[in-house]
Amino acid sequence: MPLYLIGLGLARPSDITLHGLQTLQKCQRIYLEAYTSILLSTSSASSEFDPEESARTLQAELNLTTPIEIADRDLVESGSDTILADTEKPDVNVAFLVVGDPFGATTHTDLVLRAKARNVKVGVVHNASIMNAVGCTGLQLYNFGQTVSMVFFDEENGWKPSSWYDKILENDQLGLHTLVLLDIKVREQNWENLARGRKIYEKPRFMLGNTCARQMLEIEEDRKTGVCGSDKLAVVVAKVGSDEERISVGTLEELAALTDEQLGGPLQSLILVGKKVHVLELQFLREFVQDKERYDSTVEKLYGKQEWETM
Amino acid sequence: MPLYLIGLGLARPSDITLHGLQTLQKCQRIYLEAYTSILLSTSSASSEFDPEESARTLQAELNLTTPIEIADRDLVESGSDTILADTEKPDVNVAFLVVGDPFGATTHTDLVLRAKARNVKVGVVHNASIMNAVGCTGLQLYNFGQTVSMVFFDEENGWKPSSWYDKILENDQLGLHTLVLLDIKVREQNWENLARGRKIYEKPRFMLGNTCARQMLEIEEDRKTGVCGSDKLAVVVAKVGSDEERISVGTLEELAALTDEQLGGPLQSLILVGKKVHVLELQFLREFVQDKERYDSTVEKLYGKQEWETM
Repeated sequence: MPLYLIGLGLARPSDITLHGLQTLQKCQRIYLEAYTSILLSTSSASSEFDPEESARTLQAELNLTTPIEIADRDLVESGSDTILADTEKPDVNVAFLVVGDPFGATTHTDLVLRAKARNVKVGVVHNASIMNAVGCTGLQLYNFGQTVSMVFFDEENGWKPSSWYDKILENDQLGLHTLVLLDIKVREQNWENLARGRKIYEKPRFMLGNTCARQMLEIEEDRKTGVCGSDKLAVVVAKVGSDEERISVGTLEELAALTDEQLGGPLQSLILVGKKVHVLELQFLREFVQDKERYDSTVEKLYGKQEWETM
Repeated sequence: MPLYLIGLGLARPSDITLHGLQTLQKCQRIYLEAYTSILLSTSSASSEFDPEESARTLQAELNLTTPIEIADRDLVESGSDTILADTEKPDVNVAFLVVGDPFGATTHTDLVLRAKARNVKVGVVHNASIMNAVGCTGLQLYNFGQTVSMVFFDEENGWKPSSWYDKILENDQLGLHTLVLLDIKVREQNWENLARGRKIYEKPRFMLGNTCARQMLEIEEDRKTGVCGSDKLAVVVAKVGSDEERISVGTLEELAALTDEQLGGPLQSLILVGKKVHVLELQFLREFVQDKERYDSTVEKLYGKQEWETM
């Protein structure tokens, strides 16, 4: 009878919870939300990320008898009737799988409200989201301000959305950290294919931390408040929660200059460190740094001299 | 060889991830952090919450052969040598279980830094935290400002810490929501037992949303900025992620007047809704409300007249 929103966590098929798997096993239809985030480990080559392959891998790894269908933006935003079909019947359970937590970076408010309007019960199985897993940097979650999103600039058409800058400014004035979520383009059609209704998708694109840092520096050049200055301390997290997790710490200028290779693969996020940072947070970040002398000098310039605790 | 920090999620033993369980199965020593949060379903009577019983239930439900030891504040903060003992040896794996996410509301920075100082590898298995699971209210996580904590006031001694008020004020000026984490007192000794070094613990206490709302109104009477005014819209979440989850929506005054029974059991958190709230967020909250007329009138006074979308 119910619609179950089940969080998959961040990295591997086995990041699902036991409760999530048990719930999934009683579902007759399973959808995988495949346009706001992806479970990278389920695709053989991330540059050619294929949601269908991801769904098959997930089904195999979790030993599910029911095949997993792909829910693209179209299906979720205008085809919720398809997803909710028959959910009024007592013996029909439908699962909607979401990478991370079902109410993480994206909430599927609309789908849930539509289910409730049909008197369909909605069950939720929570999981880790990037919104809480960034705690792996040692930065305290309660010192974060509002989260912002960074989309790819389109230099050709001069499209450089920068509303995130004002939010970072607000967080900065309170001394808070800012989590910057980076653009993901999966299953996007170009204008021609969209206009002709052809379901041919562009190659997926995942923004990395170096591009994000460069775009921040670019807008800083216009705005000149200093909050995204080249000397500001930031952290790039790559593949959080996976065995290939990588954490890079440096000034925005240093991070902008790192290669894709150095940063690690997608998915990535960036955190701009706030002024109210605690010495233990800085000491934790220092663990990820190779050139500790340079780090200490950056930190001293921004936050004053620190006394590292001997453990 | 490594120290594994494993998140247990929010409600049931089966909220652990498959990956977390697989990791746990290869550990020779397992500790359960039992002073910042608790897995309520593992104790038969929450008012008499017993960490030892919780550890036994967890061991049984997860079919573990290794017994789970309780790590109280003392052991974690001054006895990390005990936890880390032998972790340099290649065949010794130690697990440190944390309710929620290991880097959620509390980060175990100190323990991780001590492990790293010994060159012990640290593995992390993420899980849902209350910091992201509050998305179940329909309030968007990226519209939250900094998180605050509310401790029990001690009226007798006039101890009423209110630094949270300034943070709420800061969030409010940006129009953001504030998550208020509520006090938990588990394994606390009274002064006499503490002084005599007797490991006799007080009955556990869990703050509920009504007490939190009352304390907010109390400080508002002194400060009078209006941010915690009796008419402000707030949400109390109880037992998030469990089958007994309950979400109560109302003004601070209405929530302060609800009984413990009406709010549901512990653990609870409160969210103060910010001015920049989106109509879909308000519509989602409306689903949890019995008296929709009263809610609509509250909302209209605070945010202007809303047009609910027909689903």
